[in-house]
Amino acid sequence: MDYAGKFTGKRVLITGGLGFIGSHLAHRLVDLGAEVLLVDSLIPDYGGNLFNIAEIEHRVRVNIADVRDTHGMNCLVQHQDYLFNLAGQVSHLDSMVDPFTDLEINCRSQISILEACRQFNPEAKIVFASTRQIYGKPQYLPVDEKHPLAPTDINGVNKVAGEWYHMVYHRVYGLRTVSLRMTNTYGPHMRVKDARQTFLGWWIHQIVDNKALQIFGDGKQIRDFNYVSDVVEALLLAGAAPQAEGEIYNLGSDEPVSLLKLAEMLREINPEAEPFAIVPFPPEKKRIDIGDYHGDFTKMTGQLGWKPEVSLREGLMRTVAFYRANKAHYW
Amino acid sequence: MDYAGKFTGKRVLITGGLGFIGSHLAHRLVDLGAEVLLVDSLIPDYGGNLFNIAEIEHRVRVNIADVRDTHGMNCLVQHQDYLFNLAGQVSHLDSMVDPFTDLEINCRSQISILEACRQFNPEAKIVFASTRQIYGKPQYLPVDEKHPLAPTDINGVNKVAGEWYHMVYHRVYGLRTVSLRMTNTYGPHMRVKDARQTFLGWWIHQIVDNKALQIFGDGKQIRDFNYVSDVVEALLLAGAAPQAEGEIYNLGSDEPVSLLKLAEMLREINPEAEPFAIVPFPPEKKRIDIGDYHGDFTKMTGQLGWKPEVSLREGLMRTVAFYRANKAHYW
Repeated sequence: MDYAGKFTGKRVLITGGLGFIGSHLAHRLVDLGAEVLLVDSLIPDYGGNLFNIAEIEHRVRVNIADVRDTHGMNCLVQHQDYLFNLAGQVSHLDSMVDPFTDLEINCRSQISILEACRQFNPEAKIVFASTRQIYGKPQYLPVDEKHPLAPTDINGVNKVAGEWYHMVYHRVYGLRTVSLRMTNTYGPHMRVKDARQTFLGWWIHQIVDNKALQIFGDGKQIRDFNYVSDVVEALLLAGAAPQAEGEIYNLGSDEPVSLLKLAEMLREINPEAEPFAIVPFPPEKKRIDIGDYHGDFTKMTGQLGWKPEVSLREGLMRTVAFYRANKAHYW
Repeated sequence: MDYAGKFTGKRVLITGGLGFIGSHLAHRLVDLGAEVLLVDSLIPDYGGNLFNIAEIEHRVRVNIADVRDTHGMNCLVQHQDYLFNLAGQVSHLDSMVDPFTDLEINCRSQISILEACRQFNPEAKIVFASTRQIYGKPQYLPVDEKHPLAPTDINGVNKVAGEWYHMVYHRVYGLRTVSLRMTNTYGPHMRVKDARQTFLGWWIHQIVDNKALQIFGDGKQIRDFNYVSDVVEALLLAGAAPQAEGEIYNLGSDEPVSLLKLAEMLREINPEAEPFAIVPFPPEKKRIDIGDYHGDFTKMTGQLGWKPEVSLREGLMRTVAFYRANKAHYW
């Protein structure tokens, strides 16, 4: 599907727009000729970073606001053609330590954004960033969209609710919503300060610093990874395609790997890094771990023509190169 | 399973304890020799009613409090052996008109009750009142616990979250939680002021007043109904049985009926009532209607020995008789 013309001259709001995925989406939309409005709270630990849009800062509008600010959102959603709803609390561990903040951001704010659209902009196309975490421990692989949901932590439960509010508002009020269940996304602009959000960000940090990676458990856990430009492509396809309304799609990769293999690839990219260490699972991580995961994205391929294009090795090389060059802004 | 001795001399907290099901549970627990603490907010439209416990008011403690009051709940859960967590916003239509209040009661308060138990009473057995509404429009009948969840309204989404928080706190922290997915419960003490919570309550109101019932659609929709004493039995079994921890059980009836048939039974009980009328579905109800529903409760029968004992006709007769005698307290 050729979506290019769909965004030219259109108004596009991205919540979480200074974050990892949001900022890449902003770059792409600016190139497509869209009028881009980025809303971000810049909460220090969450991943928003003005450096992420340094190259396009004069071509976008930035509005610092928290999605929990109902009145602000009521105003900001107006007159937008597209809403990419990416803002969220994404740390699984944080959701167990502070379930209320996770609830406010991932549930309450989703309702208030949908209510704002229902009242003030019912024609907008709304793309929601969901997560494969909601499947919990897989019962079969690869996991398709029909797989039962059984989230293992509060963040997973709240993300289910956030996604389903979007579906309820589609069915009851006709809002034009679509949800993408993302797997591990990686690339430049991701938060690499610590392991709070993703272990891979932290691994890349360690590799760039020539330090040893730590692998929890036996390293045999399978995961799949999408390079961020592939995820941006999926978001734009879902935004542009009328047939995606009311639908839920998995993203995923046809290159699932064990964590051990992933660590080996990173060391091949930087052989100067210290050898990695296999260490026992910390108990607070073990009890919300999901075992192996590999997503089935054939629905997305069949209906919207999406498939990932950037190989894991290529994506990791680009990512490591980015952080080597831009360490100062992310460490 | 003989649970009688399990409650003698035990401390039991019931949230929503002045409501329909909570008050019946309180009567039974008082008879079993439990020390019963009823927590209820008495929000006018929600169904709590001091008359529901008039006969046992000197044998229970009543604490008027809202489950949204975190500090209050932190205190109230302490030293309890059992917590029957029945308080909730139960109106589907209200959840669409005011999704935030539904979120506060059905999500945030559930987290705060579970957090209170985790911190101050991790040994308590916790029984959560869930609902068959979370299945949405059935894909097959009867609906068992493996049926996919696809709630049609905000209340349904939030009840899924509320139930799953209980499961997460079991798996992660070992809290002794169990969830019952209830179908339509009816009987004395139910709210019959209007159709906000249940159409059956409103029908009983009309029948007692000799007025005509209104049936939406063609009257062929199938539903199943549990008389409240059977639901109390299920709650006590789930509370007493160690093997129920971490489990989810459907309730249900082996006597599913069409709404037309149900209306006919009510008219047989009061032939003086005006003939019922079949009227078109109001649009705000139609769009969240789930079609036919009939629950499969064989898991509960197999594991805990529960099955409903009161026939629909017998239950309806008792209910109509109760409201004829006690109209003043419920109209």
